[in-house]
Amino acid sequence: MAFETTLPGRYFYDPEIFAREQSCLFGQMWTCVGRADALPNAGDFQTAEFAGESVLIVRGRDDELRAFLNVCRHRGARLSLEPCGNTGPAIQCVYHAWSYALDGRLIGAPNIARDESLDRDNLGLVPVHLQVWEGLIWLSLADDPPPVTAQLEPALLDRFGELEKFERYGVGSLAVGKSITYEIDANWKLVVENFMECYHCAPIHPELTSLLPEFRQGTSYQGIVGQGTAFADEIDAFTLSGQGERAMLPGLLPSDARLYYGFVLWPNLFVNLLPDHVILHTLTPLGPERSRVVCDWLFTPEEIARPGFDPADTVAVFDITNRQDWDVCERTQLGMRSRAFVNGGLYVTNEQHIAGFRDLVLERLGERV
Amino acid sequence: MAFETTLPGRYFYDPEIFAREQSCLFGQMWTCVGRADALPNAGDFQTAEFAGESVLIVRGRDDELRAFLNVCRHRGARLSLEPCGNTGPAIQCVYHAWSYALDGRLIGAPNIARDESLDRDNLGLVPVHLQVWEGLIWLSLADDPPPVTAQLEPALLDRFGELEKFERYGVGSLAVGKSITYEIDANWKLVVENFMECYHCAPIHPELTSLLPEFRQGTSYQGIVGQGTAFADEIDAFTLSGQGERAMLPGLLPSDARLYYGFVLWPNLFVNLLPDHVILHTLTPLGPERSRVVCDWLFTPEEIARPGFDPADTVAVFDITNRQDWDVCERTQLGMRSRAFVNGGLYVTNEQHIAGFRDLVLERLGERV
Amino acid sequence: MAFETTLPGRYFYDPEIFAREQSCLFGQMWTCVGRADALPNAGDFQTAEFAGESVLIVRGRDDELRAFLNVCRHRGARLSLEPCGNTGPAIQCVYHAWSYALDGRLIGAPNIARDESLDRDNLGLVPVHLQVWEGLIWLSLADDPPPVTAQLEPALLDRFGELEKFERYGVGSLAVGKSITYEIDANWKLVVENFMECYHCAPIHPELTSLLPEFRQGTSYQGIVGQGTAFADEIDAFTLSGQGERAMLPGLLPSDARLYYGFVLWPNLFVNLLPDHVILHTLTPLGPERSRVVCDWLFTPEEIARPGFDPADTVAVFDITNRQDWDVCERTQLGMRSRAFVNGGLYVTNEQHIAGFRDLVLERLGERV
Repeated sequence: MAFETTLPGRYFYDPEIFAREQSCLFGQMWTCVGRADALPNAGDFQTAEFAGESVLIVRGRDDELRAFLNVCRHRGARLSLEPCGNTGPAIQCVYHAWSYALDGRLIGAPNIARDESLDRDNLGLVPVHLQVWEGLIWLSLADDPPPVTAQLEPALLDRFGELEKFERYGVGSLAVGKSITYEIDANWKLVVENFMECYHCAPIHPELTSLLPEFRQGTSYQGIVGQGTAFADEIDAFTLSGQGERAMLPGLLPSDARLYYGFVLWPNLFVNLLPDHVILHTLTPLGPERSRVVCDWLFTPEEIARPGFDPADTVAVFDITNRQDWDVCERTQLGMRSRAFVNGGLYVTNEQHIAGFRDLVLERLGERV
Repeated sequence: MAFETTLPGRYFYDPEIFAREQSCLFGQMWTCVGRADALPNAGDFQTAEFAGESVLIVRGRDDELRAFLNVCRHRGARLSLEPCGNTGPAIQCVYHAWSYALDGRLIGAPNIARDESLDRDNLGLVPVHLQVWEGLIWLSLADDPPPVTAQLEPALLDRFGELEKFERYGVGSLAVGKSITYEIDANWKLVVENFMECYHCAPIHPELTSLLPEFRQGTSYQGIVGQGTAFADEIDAFTLSGQGERAMLPGLLPSDARLYYGFVLWPNLFVNLLPDHVILHTLTPLGPERSRVVCDWLFTPEEIARPGFDPADTVAVFDITNRQDWDVCERTQLGMRSRAFVNGGLYVTNEQHIAGFRDLVLERLGERV
Repeated sequence: MAFETTLPGRYFYDPEIFAREQSCLFGQMWTCVGRADALPNAGDFQTAEFAGESVLIVRGRDDELRAFLNVCRHRGARLSLEPCGNTGPAIQCVYHAWSYALDGRLIGAPNIARDESLDRDNLGLVPVHLQVWEGLIWLSLADDPPPVTAQLEPALLDRFGELEKFERYGVGSLAVGKSITYEIDANWKLVVENFMECYHCAPIHPELTSLLPEFRQGTSYQGIVGQGTAFADEIDAFTLSGQGERAMLPGLLPSDARLYYGFVLWPNLFVNLLPDHVILHTLTPLGPERSRVVCDWLFTPEEIARPGFDPADTVAVFDITNRQDWDVCERTQLGMRSRAFVNGGLYVTNEQHIAGFRDLVLERLGERV
């Protein structure tokens, strides 16, 4: 049987294909854009780039998080240029001072308040579907999307065979101890594909494979359902030094003590589960050949509050690994326009499972699988 | 009655629409590109970016101003890279030393002077129609354009109901006391629309509205025909401090003493009339999402020649106002690609008159109005 | 008879035409990309940008030079990011450690060595045709190209009427004494056209024409077959000072002592023959409006090895001349989008021969000549 082939090269640089992905894939699926705990109080907001839109996410006086297109309904001005902040009692456009309640209703339009022509009920901010899952904010621009769990749970079942194994990590109860943002000169799909296979781990990740020696065999994600990757015998913790004595996450079983689990929640979240912390990579396509990854290292709030909390030794492992990965993604991007890649390349033995991601992309684009 | 709607978002970023505007609108209408008094002597030239062309404007030995495409007829080299200067006795291309008289005739081509194949009569510089109105240089690339006054006078009549009111300001007799050039990350039409309404004045222009308090009501340009905007009772002059004792422009009436008039002469000149000076904004589209404005503050030559002439306090008013305007234009540009603006936004009560500009654009593009 | 006309302006900026040139002209003709003596040992490599591809040129253990697309067959990663170096015993991709022999065969793929699905014989590096002529590396992406001499010798016969006159310069036996790389904001064809005519020499090259006064008449390349251009009586050598006493190249005749020969070997090599050195310009299109020229000054290895060898006075002549040429090429690029150049410009008396180059381009693009 022949190996599966990758997408043809043009899928990794063509602006027209990128635009269709933005509308048909990111514009239809639930996409992870941030953390609910970043917005604790009424009026707290953040903006997110998502499917070609700037979206304003704001916590209401009723404590609900809501999302809106970051566009004034009057003349189209961007409401907030800031990545985050607090709106105060209302969301006000600086241009003509139209103001909106935190639930999106138009509540003020100077000088035309009594104008009968102003169809105020239809001039609220344009809402974007928002759901919080495990503390993460997911958005959808679909007309009538299913619950976010309908998208995520099948992927969890594929990975674990059950939901409980993932749920006991209590990701939603954790907080960010460290966050690093990376920009990468590569198409977002190369970044996903890179995370999905460990065939490259032996060649480029000496630090990671010294902690997780099974990865030298080139298999990871596509391992047996439910199976994690064991720590090296000689290490005590998932740190660059191998030393450490952080408490296990509450709710874990003894059998979780020395295992790593990694997996992708399509389209844009990479999850890394460890006994004492969790690492989440949130991926944003910025252009056909440019992507952003925000990497968050999560710990229990108690751990972060502990005097002298310092995650540096832990953070170093995936910070180094991330940089090694982005380097090869950028090298791969450089080959996409070659006549050698017009028909794509190969997913070999340890990469056959990436074909599932390739097929998701094609299906969302309405192309043959 | 419903409000008028703006142009759909794509009109503010689509390169194809921009190219059609350059050829069908700026390439057909008279467009203001500079000042005749900047070129007092034979051989004085300036170059102007206009409708996608670089144009060379030069004063002839007969004292006439003429405009030519800034392109050598031989191999296409740009004749002048400089924004202004003096050509000397002829316009000479540096590449092969072809030379042209100041009226555009080919007068020298080294080594081929006697070659019968050289159709010298048809190898003069390509002329561009030029007319001077009120001291301003207007160009047209149309085949056989009407006089520039046929384009400008209807707009003046719309604003004043008569020509005399404008003419008594003697704009053509004034000189530049200060000039500031701005570049703006916004489509040129957003800059025009911004100048045409004062609904935004209360929210963003505290300095301007403290001088012209009527502007706080959100109306300006679309006021009663012939009506100006009164100075605040407590100010003596249109300066940031409100202080000043500059003489009124000669020819004005006592009734002009404490009034401001603003209006647009489509496609690209904004006029601001004050008792003792005039401010002109000349707008140049640089790209679908980039524009340049040159703002000139004009005074009588006598005033400028006065020892100790210092326009800073006057200039500050519109320099601050300009920067406030460009800021909201840039914010609005950011919203143009959103699905919230696919069908455009609203011109509300105080902005209904902008629909006339919208319709001009559509008409020039050959689209339905 | 009317003059010949140049290509229309769009041929000098349209990205679509540029892409067709890359595939139909540079992708089909032999193109010069470097020097064989830069890669003396097994494993020595250089990369070249050529016809939209990155190509890896490497010397094998059998001393043969070979060229391959610089792309791993597995997932498309660029094999080498470096412009030159030594591969070591194999060419190894950093991503998944696939390795290739210096002759391109796939010799290693970790963990899948025994996988029957791996069609190793068809997964070698993609070869690119390579021939060395006069010490220069020429590449072709054509399926079955003729020998490189079939492309080059007709041009030499056009210039000299015989091959011997060129061959006695022994270009292939010379070495690089100095190399300068230039980047130019102009289409590559403007650079070729500029080199092909000397009608511009009097206006812009005072240094060059003081050494070669015949050039002031505006003729050069299109002179009588086999004829060179004589040095000025008062100079001793082709140096900025006119002084110098470098030995003639071995093999030259006394009649070659005070002559310059220049010509183009299409598509991208400019040759300058002098009694004691040779200058080669290698041109690479980088984009529709951007080009690179590498200029090499060649001397005998003995001359270069001589204590105190200093080519500065010689190099200065063409370094100055080059910069003067790129300046007018960039000026000409600026005119290409004007309506004045929509139908192109003129090749006048001394430039009629450039029409041959124009026709080559059209023919390769499959357009009417």
